[in-house]
Amino acid sequence: MSLTPEQLAEIEAQRATPRPTLRAVSEGMEARLYKAHPLLDHGLVRVIDYMGDDAAIVQAARVSYGAGTKHVSNDEGLIRYLMRHWHSTPFEMCEVKLHVKLPVFVARQWIRHRTANVNEYSARYSILDREFYIPEPSQLAAQSTVNNQGRGEVLSGEESARVLEMLKRDAATSYDHYEEMLSQAQPDGTPQQGLARELARMNLPMNIYTQWYWKVDLHNLFHFLRLRADAHAQYEIRVYAEEICRIVADWVPLAYKAFEDYRLGGETLSGRAVAVLKRRLQGEVVSQEDSGMSKGEWREFVEVWG
Amino acid sequence: MSLTPEQLAEIEAQRATPRPTLRAVSEGMEARLYKAHPLLDHGLVRVIDYMGDDAAIVQAARVSYGAGTKHVSNDEGLIRYLMRHWHSTPFEMCEVKLHVKLPVFVARQWIRHRTANVNEYSARYSILDREFYIPEPSQLAAQSTVNNQGRGEVLSGEESARVLEMLKRDAATSYDHYEEMLSQAQPDGTPQQGLARELARMNLPMNIYTQWYWKVDLHNLFHFLRLRADAHAQYEIRVYAEEICRIVADWVPLAYKAFEDYRLGGETLSGRAVAVLKRRLQGEVVSQEDSGMSKGEWREFVEVWG
Amino acid sequence: MSLTPEQLAEIEAQRATPRPTLRAVSEGMEARLYKAHPLLDHGLVRVIDYMGDDAAIVQAARVSYGAGTKHVSNDEGLIRYLMRHWHSTPFEMCEVKLHVKLPVFVARQWIRHRTANVNEYSARYSILDREFYIPEPSQLAAQSTVNNQGRGEVLSGEESARVLEMLKRDAATSYDHYEEMLSQAQPDGTPQQGLARELARMNLPMNIYTQWYWKVDLHNLFHFLRLRADAHAQYEIRVYAEEICRIVADWVPLAYKAFEDYRLGGETLSGRAVAVLKRRLQGEVVSQEDSGMSKGEWREFVEVWG
Amino acid sequence: MSLTPEQLAEIEAQRATPRPTLRAVSEGMEARLYKAHPLLDHGLVRVIDYMGDDAAIVQAARVSYGAGTKHVSNDEGLIRYLMRHWHSTPFEMCEVKLHVKLPVFVARQWIRHRTANVNEYSARYSILDREFYIPEPSQLAAQSTVNNQGRGEVLSGEESARVLEMLKRDAATSYDHYEEMLSQAQPDGTPQQGLARELARMNLPMNIYTQWYWKVDLHNLFHFLRLRADAHAQYEIRVYAEEICRIVADWVPLAYKAFEDYRLGGETLSGRAVAVLKRRLQGEVVSQEDSGMSKGEWREFVEVWG
Repeated sequence: MSLTPEQLAEIEAQRATPRPTLRAVSEGMEARLYKAHPLLDHGLVRVIDYMGDDAAIVQAARVSYGAGTKHVSNDEGLIRYLMRHWHSTPFEMCEVKLHVKLPVFVARQWIRHRTANVNEYSARYSILDREFYIPEPSQLAAQSTVNNQGRGEVLSGEESARVLEMLKRDAATSYDHYEEMLSQAQPDGTPQQGLARELARMNLPMNIYTQWYWKVDLHNLFHFLRLRADAHAQYEIRVYAEEICRIVADWVPLAYKAFEDYRLGGETLSGRAVAVLKRRLQGEVVSQEDSGMSKGEWREFVEVWG
Repeated sequence: MSLTPEQLAEIEAQRATPRPTLRAVSEGMEARLYKAHPLLDHGLVRVIDYMGDDAAIVQAARVSYGAGTKHVSNDEGLIRYLMRHWHSTPFEMCEVKLHVKLPVFVARQWIRHRTANVNEYSARYSILDREFYIPEPSQLAAQSTVNNQGRGEVLSGEESARVLEMLKRDAATSYDHYEEMLSQAQPDGTPQQGLARELARMNLPMNIYTQWYWKVDLHNLFHFLRLRADAHAQYEIRVYAEEICRIVADWVPLAYKAFEDYRLGGETLSGRAVAVLKRRLQGEVVSQEDSGMSKGEWREFVEVWG
Repeated sequence: MSLTPEQLAEIEAQRATPRPTLRAVSEGMEARLYKAHPLLDHGLVRVIDYMGDDAAIVQAARVSYGAGTKHVSNDEGLIRYLMRHWHSTPFEMCEVKLHVKLPVFVARQWIRHRTANVNEYSARYSILDREFYIPEPSQLAAQSTVNNQGRGEVLSGEESARVLEMLKRDAATSYDHYEEMLSQAQPDGTPQQGLARELARMNLPMNIYTQWYWKVDLHNLFHFLRLRADAHAQYEIRVYAEEICRIVADWVPLAYKAFEDYRLGGETLSGRAVAVLKRRLQGEVVSQEDSGMSKGEWREFVEVWG
Repeated sequence: MSLTPEQLAEIEAQRATPRPTLRAVSEGMEARLYKAHPLLDHGLVRVIDYMGDDAAIVQAARVSYGAGTKHVSNDEGLIRYLMRHWHSTPFEMCEVKLHVKLPVFVARQWIRHRTANVNEYSARYSILDREFYIPEPSQLAAQSTVNNQGRGEVLSGEESARVLEMLKRDAATSYDHYEEMLSQAQPDGTPQQGLARELARMNLPMNIYTQWYWKVDLHNLFHFLRLRADAHAQYEIRVYAEEICRIVADWVPLAYKAFEDYRLGGETLSGRAVAVLKRRLQGEVVSQEDSGMSKGEWREFVEVWG
């Protein structure tokens, strides 16, 4: 990822002149505003705006629960209490707006999270740049043999080279043709009409980069992060989620720590799993046949609990 | 509406110490932050936080439409263009958080707008204050004879006095009993257990005041305002909508002016109405029987177009 | 709860004439359609319409995951897999429409679940019936001493009688005055204008009954049920949630069983709780001080795990 | 678009055995259920399920507005009244589930409508088919010279042929390489590991077909149709919207007719436009300079009103 000189100058200009505000201010976010965090080969995430901080979550909770929250003596304890009991509305009181540049196939996963506001760069109105995601060889992996949606072993160097060659060549050819179709002159200079942008774009592969402004409240962002910062998420969206985790940790440190403990680091147990654990705590040895769980369920259970 | 000394001191404290920020700042909102705008007899609206300004709408539009927006030379023209063509996503890039104190029957209308975040004061956790909406005599009106959901003529002084007497007395009695049920002592001092708050509250009438934090994006706020600042909206919610209109006019002046022209001051015509207007512009005299419209539709049409 | 003869006749009429359809049919729901399930003293829930069944969930999952789902050999296993891995979209493919009659204070809790469609009986347009929720003495309980939002011991007979007397009297008085304000004649027959319905309603207490059509998809319904069929939910909404659980069990038996095991009967553990359980499984004795948990957290943990 | 024999047999099987139901039945939809409506070269729309009919809209409105709706004597009048006054909740009481097969670049426009449920075929789990949208020559048009997002004149035959050749060749090459990357054997039979599906898919162009189940309520569907059946919508999504319009006309004929008159055939006027029309109705000649409108606004106004 590299920004154009114009973009860098714009960022500097935006960061040059702080103005006074009476709103809640998060120092961790002020330090990050507008700066680009590079991801993958041409991607980025940067914070464009934010609303609220840890104190805003606490304040909203105290509005709702009034005297009821007084016995929780400190902010950290109250935030952990809210997270533990799935009281989601106080977290909705914080909002963040991000600028994200990402490959189209990642954007298509991302957009499935519907409770957010999006302004995407439109290829009907404008021409996309010649920028494609080409994975690092270390990321080129075979289909997993145990998981229908995951990756297994890294490809051998030779196979990897063949794949990279195909990805690069097809991207280049598609983009050359995209430009050729749009152009009002043929390669030899003969004038032509030039195809409408809304049609020409269909020739571009899904590793081309797009960009958008994405605005979301903290509760829905946590939901996104829980699914996309998970080890089972596809690597190419996970790197975005992990970067956003770092941003959130700077923005609302108490809320992020609670999220990390209860959601990222936590576990959800079925009633059957609870029963097995209780028997084990009594010293009993429980087998899959004896657990009420299917084989797949049992395998996942044993991965966590041994 | 009157704030407690504690609340006033809290507001002053919040307004006392501006801090530097690199975010978009709206001077119109900074002047309003935390200050209470009194409404009805005990209600209020005040701005707790906001995100974005007119420039943020323009910036989001330029991300989406890229070069496509360059021919619209200035911000005002672009914002009007967005409003005219129902391009709603750039308006979603702005967000506001309000503190609202309002009667329960108004809150029940308000909450029907679902695309917003809400933290309401909970009467399960806490005890409600003895504050009831008692209308001004000028607002006590008879059922409309033409409109099933509206008001007609103002009540005569005598009838008005009877109504006010009933409203006041029932509110006072209900609240006395609410306190009596909650109390751990009977009026004569004999100890009793005291009813749970979540039960005692059911005795309170719907003109009691509640309060909440309400957070919404500008697009959905405009939708709310179009319906609730309308002349057909119930007076008691309309005064809130009108106050919020003034807040929005200070926050995003260009967007508000476009909203005022296209939504509040505009008209929606059916295909049949378009056809009638075109015939009239040709000099033809059109009657209801001849218009394809029902009597009700025609009456509403004539109210606007003569 | 008792239906009027007109309502009963309408239900019979609606159930009298089955018609052929090519859509997915759930026999369990057909047996329930339109029939009223009484709740509390005047409340009800009944099914007005539904879309989809267990097979529709499976079908949607197989569209999404294609060949990826083939190794899960049967429908039950696949539905459990979806529930375990928080794949929510297949459950969104089922929809249900309920007619609910409920006290206003319950409706105010219910409506906080925003992802649903609602048509509520309007007291601006129409006159509410004289029906109030008056709890059974067995439900009249004191404020909990350990929980800020719950109930503790049942009230003594004498205190209970005092409470019931107040609730009944205030409801009757408020409703008498509601009618008096609406009326176009004073009690002695002298004509008066009659207050607009949208104003008169504000005198009614929150235990009056309202009704609505509520339409929701199965995923969001499960979310509602997890929170509202929980032991910590207020009794008056819990009885509705429990009745809806029975309805869902008849509608989509496999999905309901999975929900019961993973959500209602399951547990969510924080990272800290996972660590404590793992130490215990190793035979270690862990104390609160040693657990990293707060006292409140530890108390809740011990309630489940001993 | 052609269905596989298996798909055709499945459709016949689904249509073979009607079952009795007590729910609302729309004959127009029963006639359409499961049948595929071909669109573009490989696309389709078909109805998988539906809930409600015109009567369900009326019934929901009568619940909300009670006696208030009695003066609107018939269903058609009531539905027109609801549409005219933006009473959207009764339309939300109807729901439809569609199976749609569409090019990815169309899917990316479509998904911007967030208030719907979606289950899309996953290229992480499964392998996409070799099906690409290749436009008819009559649809290959130049960029519009007046509209930044539209099409102008149809391309000359020669240029058109060059474009088609590029689209076809690039699609074929990309798909060949997609298969080659996925394969566990090189073209000469030498074994290789085979790239993970979630990675290989990034090489595919955006005119490849995807498919999904899309479930939406009637109010939100109307919103989608208003924007996408509009003459300014891109042709490739408009054909889907127009087909869905025909489906809706069969499903809820009264609601569709009201939608057609008030939304598709209607006009929205700004306050400035209302003022100009009123002056014209008085016989005044108004020029752009004199109208308060910008040039762009005036041009659009004159297109409608002459």
